[in-house]
Amino acid sequence: MDINVPEVKVPRIVIVGCGFGGLQLAKSLHKAEAQIVLIDKNNYHTFQPLLYQVATAGLEADSIAYPIRKIFKGQYNFHFRWGEVQKIIPAENRIVTSIGELKYDHLVIATGSTTNFFGNKDFEDKAIPMKSVVEALNLRSMVLQNFEKALLTTDTKDLEALMNFVVVGGGPTGVELAGALCELKRHVLPNDYPELDFRKMRIILMENGAELLASMAEGNRDKARKYLEELGCEVWTKTGLAKYNGTLAETNNGKQLLTLNLIWAAGVKGVLIDGLLPTCISNRGRFFVNDYCRIKGYDNIYALGDVAVMISDKYPNGHPQVAPVAIQQAEMLGSNFIKALKGWTLNKFDYFDKGTMATVGRNKAVVEVGKIRFGGFLGWFAWMFLHLILLVGYRNKIVVFINWVWSYFNYDRNIRLIIRPFNRK
Amino acid sequence: MDINVPEVKVPRIVIVGCGFGGLQLAKSLHKAEAQIVLIDKNNYHTFQPLLYQVATAGLEADSIAYPIRKIFKGQYNFHFRWGEVQKIIPAENRIVTSIGELKYDHLVIATGSTTNFFGNKDFEDKAIPMKSVVEALNLRSMVLQNFEKALLTTDTKDLEALMNFVVVGGGPTGVELAGALCELKRHVLPNDYPELDFRKMRIILMENGAELLASMAEGNRDKARKYLEELGCEVWTKTGLAKYNGTLAETNNGKQLLTLNLIWAAGVKGVLIDGLLPTCISNRGRFFVNDYCRIKGYDNIYALGDVAVMISDKYPNGHPQVAPVAIQQAEMLGSNFIKALKGWTLNKFDYFDKGTMATVGRNKAVVEVGKIRFGGFLGWFAWMFLHLILLVGYRNKIVVFINWVWSYFNYDRNIRLIIRPFNRK
Repeated sequence: MDINVPEVKVPRIVIVGCGFGGLQLAKSLHKAEAQIVLIDKNNYHTFQPLLYQVATAGLEADSIAYPIRKIFKGQYNFHFRWGEVQKIIPAENRIVTSIGELKYDHLVIATGSTTNFFGNKDFEDKAIPMKSVVEALNLRSMVLQNFEKALLTTDTKDLEALMNFVVVGGGPTGVELAGALCELKRHVLPNDYPELDFRKMRIILMENGAELLASMAEGNRDKARKYLEELGCEVWTKTGLAKYNGTLAETNNGKQLLTLNLIWAAGVKGVLIDGLLPTCISNRGRFFVNDYCRIKGYDNIYALGDVAVMISDKYPNGHPQVAPVAIQQAEMLGSNFIKALKGWTLNKFDYFDKGTMATVGRNKAVVEVGKIRFGGFLGWFAWMFLHLILLVGYRNKIVVFINWVWSYFNYDRNIRLIIRPFNRK
Repeated sequence: MDINVPEVKVPRIVIVGCGFGGLQLAKSLHKAEAQIVLIDKNNYHTFQPLLYQVATAGLEADSIAYPIRKIFKGQYNFHFRWGEVQKIIPAENRIVTSIGELKYDHLVIATGSTTNFFGNKDFEDKAIPMKSVVEALNLRSMVLQNFEKALLTTDTKDLEALMNFVVVGGGPTGVELAGALCELKRHVLPNDYPELDFRKMRIILMENGAELLASMAEGNRDKARKYLEELGCEVWTKTGLAKYNGTLAETNNGKQLLTLNLIWAAGVKGVLIDGLLPTCISNRGRFFVNDYCRIKGYDNIYALGDVAVMISDKYPNGHPQVAPVAIQQAEMLGSNFIKALKGWTLNKFDYFDKGTMATVGRNKAVVEVGKIRFGGFLGWFAWMFLHLILLVGYRNKIVVFINWVWSYFNYDRNIRLIIRPFNRK
């Protein structure tokens, strides 16, 4: 059965996914003479850069998740449908979803990325990912549950496994998460569990490459490492995870470690949808698109953001998988849709790199904007400021700000709640 | 195996449950020469009076749930253990729990109450309860999911079932929930679902008795009904639910109604623990206690709050099952423990009734304090003020205050998130 969407005379643009890209595109089309149908498997947009704070009990989910319908209140050409897209039938201009089928005139795939375990079944089953609100809440529960369990054991091996934390992947997510765990160890958990000896809690950040934050400049990479080590994090570079059975982690350079807390932040892959030609999919699981975000081999199917790879002279491996790329591609695509309706010439995508930043703990961050690089407290302040500006919704900005101020002056994390008990798969 | 708790020379008081009573008791004992072990199946205390706002997307769970360990930070005679108590073995002064066994010198049962379906299996399976954070989050998801589904259907019967809401039970919970649903209908949902005709959304409050809020004075009962009807709620008094199969509700006076949204707020029963004599349990599922909260037939086992029933001349059926009773009993019991350790005379329980209140929608409430009765906007303001004061934690007070102010001036409810999808049993 077809999804119940009003039949209109203007073209129907179907957008799959309401991450940074899908959200921006639907907004950019608010004046377009087109019907916009946005489909997402969640009824909210997730501000992913702050997921790690949900996972570490600093923010509640509602602070970084925003109801999609609320964003588009009053945009009359817009229709949201809550469902999962299962398949594209390009020959019929039709998609198959969990809530029915739907015809499109243009289809935009903005499904983003998900955790990449690179085919390792053990890692997928046993390691903890953190790419969605649900996963972040699970991680929060896991951390708290394991400390509750640590109280009950007298076995030293069990205690080691419960109190060792391993974060795999030294990109911004891994660095920020490891920093937040160090803060929990220093300021929060010892108050909650006075019966435990927190000198025994280890936080290890594991990175395959030679350095953390590979995409940043050298000075900043060193700084991030220094900040983390000052916080008590063990940084293991040139070290990959070789095996993990849920209890014992083994590295590719022969180290062994008991841990029930292994968090995987070592890579992402695009969230593909079935039905398109295999030739339009890269070996990293992304759709090849041209300078206009059109998928190779199709006239009216597009992809943008993390799920798209646009090869250019400047970016021979595609653009970095970060929010600004998705947003700028969405702006480009949105304005091109409007131009096409009017018969005007289309613009090619040209990425404007606004810079990159990562925060470490409660007072430090590294920031790069073009040639300008800074860190420390100033960097941290810039990081906070920017994330508050970018958060969707004024209420969320206020609530997050209060939580941050509160946590900062009280050395505290308030949301230490096990509402959704964690169960290992 | 025994739960790992330090062995000390002072008596061990085990408290089961961290609701209003258990929480207050553990606090009252902060200077007692005793070891306090508190066991709860959640790691947080729930501020139950505001659960209905979590269920109706006004507040996030963290605003009304507070980590137990944080409350007792620095109370050195206090130990929290996260687990569920399964059985008492009074002959051995021992309890059996999901995390091991534990000896006690004194045992206090403060497990509170849960939804009472009065033995009706259909109601238990098909109606939605709202007595815990998890249930409130499920209810929030159900409401939102059913509107998402309403968009997809063209069948009038389906639409009716999706858009009819029935609240069973005209006590404070039912009244407050029905009022909040009316506000959602008036101010929030029409913006979110412009494609739906909200004149078709019905909210029905069903009460077996002749009037709403039976425990309040007559003037206030009428006011509450008037307020609700002004908000668009249909109030069906002298009407009980006879049958419900998940879709069709039938009343005991012959009415029929299609609804997928039937919320049960029609009664509670004590959360009992196995192992005590049947003679100490009332037919409403509560432990009979004497004036000192000691359970009939036992020297060192106590019950307080909703799970206890204390018969007196003034309260021949026991005290009302409300937070102030639990809190005052906990204060009495706490000071009696300390007195007993010193060999002093114990105090009997004497309930000081501070009054009762219920809010209806965004501007109205009914309040009774002794002979003083008032309502309307002043009542609503008093209700808000008191609940803010009573909430645990300054951060929670601030966040709730901001949410209320925000919602008030924007006619909005922010937390319209389906993070934990609702699945009917």
